[in-house]
Amino acid sequence: MADRIYSYQQLKAFTENVFKKIGCSDEQSATAAKVLLSADLRGIDSHGVARLSGYVRLWEVKRVNATPNIRIVHETPSTAVVDGDSGLGLVVAPYAMQVAIEKAKNVGSGWVSVENSNHFGIAGYHGMMALEHDMIGIAMTNASPLVSPTFSQEKLLGTNPICVAVPAGTEQPFVADLATTTAANGKLEILQRKNLDAPLGWVQDANGQSTTDAHAVKSGGALLPLGGDREHGSHKGYALGAMVDIFCGVLSGANYGPWVPPFPAYVPMPPTMPGKGIGHFFGAMRIDAFRPASEFKDNMDNWLRRFRSAKAIPGEERVLVPGDPERETEAIRMKEGIPLIEPVDADLKQLAEKLGIAFIS
Amino acid sequence: MADRIYSYQQLKAFTENVFKKIGCSDEQSATAAKVLLSADLRGIDSHGVARLSGYVRLWEVKRVNATPNIRIVHETPSTAVVDGDSGLGLVVAPYAMQVAIEKAKNVGSGWVSVENSNHFGIAGYHGMMALEHDMIGIAMTNASPLVSPTFSQEKLLGTNPICVAVPAGTEQPFVADLATTTAANGKLEILQRKNLDAPLGWVQDANGQSTTDAHAVKSGGALLPLGGDREHGSHKGYALGAMVDIFCGVLSGANYGPWVPPFPAYVPMPPTMPGKGIGHFFGAMRIDAFRPASEFKDNMDNWLRRFRSAKAIPGEERVLVPGDPERETEAIRMKEGIPLIEPVDADLKQLAEKLGIAFIS
Repeated sequence: MADRIYSYQQLKAFTENVFKKIGCSDEQSATAAKVLLSADLRGIDSHGVARLSGYVRLWEVKRVNATPNIRIVHETPSTAVVDGDSGLGLVVAPYAMQVAIEKAKNVGSGWVSVENSNHFGIAGYHGMMALEHDMIGIAMTNASPLVSPTFSQEKLLGTNPICVAVPAGTEQPFVADLATTTAANGKLEILQRKNLDAPLGWVQDANGQSTTDAHAVKSGGALLPLGGDREHGSHKGYALGAMVDIFCGVLSGANYGPWVPPFPAYVPMPPTMPGKGIGHFFGAMRIDAFRPASEFKDNMDNWLRRFRSAKAIPGEERVLVPGDPERETEAIRMKEGIPLIEPVDADLKQLAEKLGIAFIS
Repeated sequence: MADRIYSYQQLKAFTENVFKKIGCSDEQSATAAKVLLSADLRGIDSHGVARLSGYVRLWEVKRVNATPNIRIVHETPSTAVVDGDSGLGLVVAPYAMQVAIEKAKNVGSGWVSVENSNHFGIAGYHGMMALEHDMIGIAMTNASPLVSPTFSQEKLLGTNPICVAVPAGTEQPFVADLATTTAANGKLEILQRKNLDAPLGWVQDANGQSTTDAHAVKSGGALLPLGGDREHGSHKGYALGAMVDIFCGVLSGANYGPWVPPFPAYVPMPPTMPGKGIGHFFGAMRIDAFRPASEFKDNMDNWLRRFRSAKAIPGEERVLVPGDPERETEAIRMKEGIPLIEPVDADLKQLAEKLGIAFIS
């Protein structure tokens, strides 16, 4: 079935209306819609409007607070803990990243750990907020357990992504945004929908054996840390995912490890929980807190040109810099629109009906 | 041939004498020996005394300055750039990490980028310096190009390791220390010495094809980023290695990418170089800049216990936390001594003879 294509503006306006309808302020609705749509624009379809009805269901079961009092609960000149008051991660995260940026303006860098939040969309949006301030931006979040540490039969970590965004001069910036697993859950969901096999190294089955069964996560299996198995360095992917969990969860007072609340509202919450909500972590470093920004940008441009012009292996067109594919997708989708697969299109229409608001006409 | 076993004290005293002999101060010699030996103790044999004669050769060709004026050249309350004045990375790095720790005491966190340095031993030593201060420690370094970005035929990155050390309460701490490649170069060298094949996903050949030839790096091939190939997430390992390179090299004014100076003194320097020496990056975050240290430690202990007691997959004894294997090796080697393979033993004896100092008797 052909994808239905909508413009960015159409989907953004609808998304904003949905958030307003559940009681979010105009400002928060606009921010949440912008963050959510940035995923669709950048081609990370699993984290965009495909999740909109999921956020609404979290609000219905009172796990999302539409009128949160997001606030700093502890701080030093270069650090803070933000309590998201169960607000949408889509608005809690930009608030916290802004705190990091303000601290970086004052003392060179800012580092903010967040408790009591919900899913924040793509890490890339928040990390990239630093770019216009000539700062390096960092964003991470923990997430509900889908991933088994090396040698573990149990799922103890989320896909725990890391974004690092670095400004440049005339070249397009460096924007890494990666789940600390071999493959993001969204890629696995595509295989599940099409009933295709997964490559070995993505998933283990209920016995902890690597499997090509893309559905194994639903029957006691797990996603695997980046590396896939011990021989290929999965203990490193595990270590990176664990670092994200500690920075986001343990440092803030949020939940961590196997206790991070699930995104689907129908999945019961863990019976006991050591913290509040899910956790994020943000960082901002002012470039000129290290060296003059113009010098840095000249060198960063040199870096970017060298990597982008590297000789490609036979059969591949070119070497990419992290962020290049997403930026190219964004340019195309801003112009030509955002394609939605039929189930997502139907889901949004149902959501409009349920909330009694108009869908895109 | 059986390994020769020396005590930690024997090897440390000899190493200290070597550094004194080339003109390092007593204090710097002691620090350098302690840092170098921490690799042997922790079982990272490729980064310990096996490299001692290599450091001396760098001094002989005047690429290492035995009496450096290591200093802060730019700073803000939470950041600094340190110029290592071509000193041993083994002493430049602890200096810079100490700067990060002092800044964290004052404003909650400290972040230090280093230019004009040399190889710093294991990242783990420097990151772990933060632990006794109830801080999270971070350490990274760039290194000479051995690694090809995803789809690149050229080697543009080093194995660029990351250490993250997190204090705990009664449990042993979390210490991740990982090269951003599938396998560290040291592991490959072991296969080379034994003429064994490498697993697919570690190395590519001169045409950019994955190969089991452990010698391929010497004939136009390259180490592969963590993930191994695109399908298994090598673009993520590449992104992480690139982040390390930018934080260490571009942010400080050191060299970066393909221009990072090689460790072997006989390898010629790149004809043009955009910066000074090799670069490092260090971070320290005070736990109580986020939440009371006792609360954090209780939760961190809970985290560590949960992961260490996770159910292991069939055939594996237990689930480890990053840092566990190295800590266990350290305990054994501190007690039973450090085994050196014959070529390393012979190399140290030759070095003693060349410098006219006594070897271990």
